[in-house]
Amino acid sequence: MPLVVQKYGGTSVGSVERIKAVADRVRRSAAGGDRIVVVVSAMAGETDRLFALAGQLGAHPNPRETDVLVSTGEQVSAALLAIRLQALGLPAVSLLASQLRLTTDSNHGRARIKSIDVRRVLQALEDGNIVVAAGYQGVDSLGNITTLGRGASDLSAVALAAALRAHRCEICTDVEGVFTADPNICPPARKLSRISYDEMLELAGLGAKVLQARSVELAKRFKVPVVVRSSFTDAPGTWVGEEDKAMEDVLVSGVTLDRNQSKITLTGVEDRPGLAAKIFGPIAKAGIVVDMIIQNASAEGRTDLTFTVSRGDLLRALELVKEVAAQIGAGGVRYEEQVAKVSVVGCGMRSHAGVAARMFEVLAREGINIEMIATSEIKISSVVNIKYGELAVRVLHDALVGNCGAGSYKEER
Amino acid sequence: MPLVVQKYGGTSVGSVERIKAVADRVRRSAAGGDRIVVVVSAMAGETDRLFALAGQLGAHPNPRETDVLVSTGEQVSAALLAIRLQALGLPAVSLLASQLRLTTDSNHGRARIKSIDVRRVLQALEDGNIVVAAGYQGVDSLGNITTLGRGASDLSAVALAAALRAHRCEICTDVEGVFTADPNICPPARKLSRISYDEMLELAGLGAKVLQARSVELAKRFKVPVVVRSSFTDAPGTWVGEEDKAMEDVLVSGVTLDRNQSKITLTGVEDRPGLAAKIFGPIAKAGIVVDMIIQNASAEGRTDLTFTVSRGDLLRALELVKEVAAQIGAGGVRYEEQVAKVSVVGCGMRSHAGVAARMFEVLAREGINIEMIATSEIKISSVVNIKYGELAVRVLHDALVGNCGAGSYKEER
Repeated sequence: MPLVVQKYGGTSVGSVERIKAVADRVRRSAAGGDRIVVVVSAMAGETDRLFALAGQLGAHPNPRETDVLVSTGEQVSAALLAIRLQALGLPAVSLLASQLRLTTDSNHGRARIKSIDVRRVLQALEDGNIVVAAGYQGVDSLGNITTLGRGASDLSAVALAAALRAHRCEICTDVEGVFTADPNICPPARKLSRISYDEMLELAGLGAKVLQARSVELAKRFKVPVVVRSSFTDAPGTWVGEEDKAMEDVLVSGVTLDRNQSKITLTGVEDRPGLAAKIFGPIAKAGIVVDMIIQNASAEGRTDLTFTVSRGDLLRALELVKEVAAQIGAGGVRYEEQVAKVSVVGCGMRSHAGVAARMFEVLAREGINIEMIATSEIKISSVVNIKYGELAVRVLHDALVGNCGAGSYKEER
Repeated sequence: MPLVVQKYGGTSVGSVERIKAVADRVRRSAAGGDRIVVVVSAMAGETDRLFALAGQLGAHPNPRETDVLVSTGEQVSAALLAIRLQALGLPAVSLLASQLRLTTDSNHGRARIKSIDVRRVLQALEDGNIVVAAGYQGVDSLGNITTLGRGASDLSAVALAAALRAHRCEICTDVEGVFTADPNICPPARKLSRISYDEMLELAGLGAKVLQARSVELAKRFKVPVVVRSSFTDAPGTWVGEEDKAMEDVLVSGVTLDRNQSKITLTGVEDRPGLAAKIFGPIAKAGIVVDMIIQNASAEGRTDLTFTVSRGDLLRALELVKEVAAQIGAGGVRYEEQVAKVSVVGCGMRSHAGVAARMFEVLAREGINIEMIATSEIKISSVVNIKYGELAVRVLHDALVGNCGAGSYKEER
């Protein structure tokens, strides 16, 4: 019998009624003959509630104890779902990280998985149980509770699927799959039936909330077939897997918009070696991730340096940059609190040129100025004025994905 | 340095403000030089909330999973208190039952403690930590979470104190100690400075909520000095310990009222051997505890049998008794839904007669009819009409305890 890991997110288990619906769904899957390991998140809002309690008791709550606290959210969900399954007459057993022996390092709040000893899970399955595993949590070698980072129940699910060599890992969520763009912004957006790990990684990195980036990396490494699908319907969802020939024919799988970016410009910087290190060293040390960097060559040996950070990091980044600017005698510091990063992603770009040119052409036609550009093998991102963000998504989707089937745009060869 | 176990109940940790107050109190104790192990209950209302959730998902929620669920209440409290202590600059570490190795049998919902491996606690104390242990929970030999029964955080505290050979176990609660009667009913009631284990056991068995009966048994067995005191003041509280000569001089330590009793009478029962077994067998089998039993000898080989049960068990008990009544050809079944059980407790009764006579005399003087009587070595209980319950407590307290010092009544010798 195929072994399937099903992960249900916080919205899917957000109330007694929702938990009942999940149990019914699990029952249908079990009736279909699958052996099932369910991974659950905390009920929607519960993790935030627990973090808020911790914050009321300490400005910087002790990380070990915060993990003991917030891991109860998943423990509650797992127990409640097991109770419901039992009430439906289905043998079920909840397992916590300490019982799953999902071992991590001791990096509280963002622990990394070291190993999973699947014997207890396999024994429980062999005894005829549905296993309900608490997501998000781990246990270190000393038996301390750890957590894997926000949104990491996806990671728990993929890791379990890898360790159990599951037939597939179903990520059951509140959307029907991965879309070519956010349908709220771009109504013609369509659900993709398949997408490669690399594309999904780029999309997750660009803020598509459907799947946590670390879980995609892990799925890619262990070749775990992942399917993103709705908790509420039986629609087939989007398969995430290895790249194949058909995928390469699709130039652009998705268009994304990230509104959560700020832009900082350091003007009149003396253009000599080692200066970038002087500027970005303190920022990196403060744990601030710099996303895009451009440097404008300029006259008289001076240059402008522009980079983007998450809006949440803007204030701290500005402080650091102003200090450095004073030290190195830069002209000044300018910033824009909110800019839009519009990206197109598609593994077809690996073998086909021309997408970038087409992107710039489409944006230019709408009068949208591109302020910064960054590219990877399968992604092109442009920073534009925030007021053009949604328009940019729509025109790029129209031109590069089209209304009538993913990958309708084919490079003219 | 003396090792002290302090237990805080649900009301004492019922809010962020209360947890802060508990942390301040623990800090003062630590500053006084004690090594401290704190045992916490779930925040007031939380356990009920979790049981209610379980009840919404299954009429008879699976006991193993219910324990996984409800044990999160104490996990949350323990983490929050540890977070607060850390925020105050006090090294603190929370420990769950699985980490404490507080091992129980697998009797979910009312597990019995088998052993506690105190090495981890001692190590944590040696490392300079305040240990915050989650009460109420245990772990069986297979690593499943168990719970010890409602109110069993007291038991956790006493068990830890016993295993650690603690100097004392402080039960910090919302009252200032053990009183000679409920001050709400009997305003002259006074706090006792000392009471024996046996007296406390009787009082706990009679429904005094201040200390769980099982925890008193355990304290007695391992001679753990227990002090019941307020979480909110530094008043000295009531010591519970071994009986001594001074205690014997006090005839009556407390007068209690239990309004939670129902009375059932089976009339016209044929008076022959084996009948009691026939009647009480099915009741015991249904898990219903029968408290008092009296049998009136009567004419013509027939007799009336009267007994009391908890009000919550009345309906089930009546069903069973009616079945048996039909089988054995009894005259009929009568019941009173609510009766009052008034009790006087005092270890001085062991060596002094006359208390019972005085009790009956006092009640008779007030025109209160005694419907049933039961005695133990150190307790006399009388069932009276519910409307006289509070009056009975007041007049008995006045006559046997008095207004001017516990044990003001001395047997006339």
